[in-house]
Amino acid sequence: MAGRLADVTRPISFLSDFGLADEFVGVVHAVMTRIAPESRIIDITHQVPRGDIQAGALALVRAVQYLPEGVAVAVVDPGVGTTRRAIAVGTAWGEFVGPDNGVLAPAVAMMGGAERIVAIEDPQYQLPRDGVTFDGRDVFAPAAALLAAGEVAIGDLGAGLDTSSATPLLLPLVDNSDGQLAGQVLWVDAFGNCQTNITPQDMADVGLAAGATVEAAVGVTSYNLAWVASYGDVEPGEALIHIDSYGQISLAVREGRADDDLALAVGTSVVIRPPK
Amino acid sequence: MAGRLADVTRPISFLSDFGLADEFVGVVHAVMTRIAPESRIIDITHQVPRGDIQAGALALVRAVQYLPEGVAVAVVDPGVGTTRRAIAVGTAWGEFVGPDNGVLAPAVAMMGGAERIVAIEDPQYQLPRDGVTFDGRDVFAPAAALLAAGEVAIGDLGAGLDTSSATPLLLPLVDNSDGQLAGQVLWVDAFGNCQTNITPQDMADVGLAAGATVEAAVGVTSYNLAWVASYGDVEPGEALIHIDSYGQISLAVREGRADDDLALAVGTSVVIRPPK
Amino acid sequence: MAGRLADVTRPISFLSDFGLADEFVGVVHAVMTRIAPESRIIDITHQVPRGDIQAGALALVRAVQYLPEGVAVAVVDPGVGTTRRAIAVGTAWGEFVGPDNGVLAPAVAMMGGAERIVAIEDPQYQLPRDGVTFDGRDVFAPAAALLAAGEVAIGDLGAGLDTSSATPLLLPLVDNSDGQLAGQVLWVDAFGNCQTNITPQDMADVGLAAGATVEAAVGVTSYNLAWVASYGDVEPGEALIHIDSYGQISLAVREGRADDDLALAVGTSVVIRPPK
Repeated sequence: MAGRLADVTRPISFLSDFGLADEFVGVVHAVMTRIAPESRIIDITHQVPRGDIQAGALALVRAVQYLPEGVAVAVVDPGVGTTRRAIAVGTAWGEFVGPDNGVLAPAVAMMGGAERIVAIEDPQYQLPRDGVTFDGRDVFAPAAALLAAGEVAIGDLGAGLDTSSATPLLLPLVDNSDGQLAGQVLWVDAFGNCQTNITPQDMADVGLAAGATVEAAVGVTSYNLAWVASYGDVEPGEALIHIDSYGQISLAVREGRADDDLALAVGTSVVIRPPK
Repeated sequence: MAGRLADVTRPISFLSDFGLADEFVGVVHAVMTRIAPESRIIDITHQVPRGDIQAGALALVRAVQYLPEGVAVAVVDPGVGTTRRAIAVGTAWGEFVGPDNGVLAPAVAMMGGAERIVAIEDPQYQLPRDGVTFDGRDVFAPAAALLAAGEVAIGDLGAGLDTSSATPLLLPLVDNSDGQLAGQVLWVDAFGNCQTNITPQDMADVGLAAGATVEAAVGVTSYNLAWVASYGDVEPGEALIHIDSYGQISLAVREGRADDDLALAVGTSVVIRPPK
Repeated sequence: MAGRLADVTRPISFLSDFGLADEFVGVVHAVMTRIAPESRIIDITHQVPRGDIQAGALALVRAVQYLPEGVAVAVVDPGVGTTRRAIAVGTAWGEFVGPDNGVLAPAVAMMGGAERIVAIEDPQYQLPRDGVTFDGRDVFAPAAALLAAGEVAIGDLGAGLDTSSATPLLLPLVDNSDGQLAGQVLWVDAFGNCQTNITPQDMADVGLAAGATVEAAVGVTSYNLAWVASYGDVEPGEALIHIDSYGQISLAVREGRADDDLALAVGTSVVIRPPK
């Protein structure tokens, strides 16, 4: 490989659906450490639901603005061992590495969009291997670490692709016709908080403002919820609507679980409207 | 921020109840890495039962004497989004950062007590944010990292508080009246070992010494258990009492689970006495 | 302790069955960080099934060829607190540290065999302690970190042992009599892929080659499976046989779980033969 392209090794942020039961995450760390021994590795999470590209993409985009500039590698890859492409995407923030299945798309967009995309295909930058089913170890880890260490430039990894050719992630849109917001739950966190795809701007578009009481319809059930700043503004056990720590409209229960109390899960439709 | 206050960045030890399913732990690492890129981060555990302040405090105090000197941040915070205070506590060991709900108290006491306590409140040392429900990311992580990197002194974070004003953690006491020890289980580890709040000194106070057979009453059931040095002193599958690796009296089963075999859980009352 | 024996601190790779619910892994990190503050610690996995020496040994041997040269510590230790020995094994790759119960044996063999084995027994290189049931913290972590930091040589830790005296790991052998391969499942990963103890050479020995259809008998049920290069060579939901990313013969289901679909678990017997 050529001499170092950068003066300082950069950190690598790493997300996957590998779980922690097997040694997969450890082996990817090991591969990256051998190539980029000075690069810190930040584990975003490895418990994305298996093969759930949307969940992985949303976890990455929630995290990305906090990550130190460098390289992010995201491996949620139900198509491993098929003809789906492996890509590296150059952005103003740094490089994103992963399968071309949409898992990188929202984070790339948030960081200003793709300046460059290449197919990771030069075998000299991959590990030799018997089987072809662990691209995290054999393809993505070396690419990420070589970029982080400044050992290769993104253009060395393979052929350039049209920056508009990457697979997008299609997220459900909010429908604000009829003076109400038909959205859905995008994420239920481990505390049972339920983030929707609805934004504060959507709320304003139908005349709702913080401090109001809001009607939230989940299936055939409707709840009148206070739109408050924080949990402390309602009683323990009481449900609420608020702008969460990512700027999205979320449903929560103080000292409780909104998923259980309001029968919500990822994908559940939620209609928000002014109370009658 | 002012110039560096210390020559060497110090490690940050980090405990929470965030779990590993979401990207919360990763994002806190990311925030701390951007502020203190040279500080190693040690994950004590992130699987404290959600909102269980006592469990978090006990995990921290079991770990603290082994932690490298520096900063410890503990986020078990059922009161996030309410008016509970965020504090930093200066001790002879280093600084402890977390909510003022008792989670820090036993560790602070073990390290010699609070020399100084401040409320973390200066917004210039917090991340700007939309919602107010992720203080781990927005308040505690920056404070811990700034302290570890020597970028701020503890007094910069906010107003000083009386060192006696921090919320204590109230732990159940052992009752040694009637020539017996009425204690309870404080911790069941992943192997099923059950640590009690009873100490070897308590045992001596009622005339019990290592090597003796001890009667342990759990509810209406009594067990005669050997007080041995280690698992190897009983047969596989046999229950025992011993001084565990933290110096507390614990119940265990060699190659088995004491919680299952003896019907124990956190909070279960256990009465220890000389056999009749 | 004597002066540094090496110029550069080496990384420590760490595997255990501690799980992540308690603070055990964090405390071992803390102990190692205090002794070897410059050594990176790579967590291979900590979710080996509790006390399962074979599973731990197999995870270590799958990982070992990817680990950066240095020290590996593996704590799967159902005999803690008994008279089983603690050992350090010197190899061409570096040192392996753990209980002498077979957990290290396959990895040591893969890295060229033991050049030297010592009993870890000198108390000056162990932590003082109350109980004797956390050797990961008190015995193995200090030994691994002292070796990684170059603070001690392997021979300082205790008496040398005959290199043939270490406890081996007995793995089930493949029986290739009768023109068929009677093997078994060694590992079911988190995706449901089932690795067997059968190698491509075993397949060749009974006249099977990649591209063939293969009969796999599991109990009284037989499946005709395509031996393909990768998941993409069959339809979604279809079962297959392939050489996995570790070079072993594995059963998998594209976008599915072979353990569920083919009723496989660790230890299940699988007979592979040419179809009738």
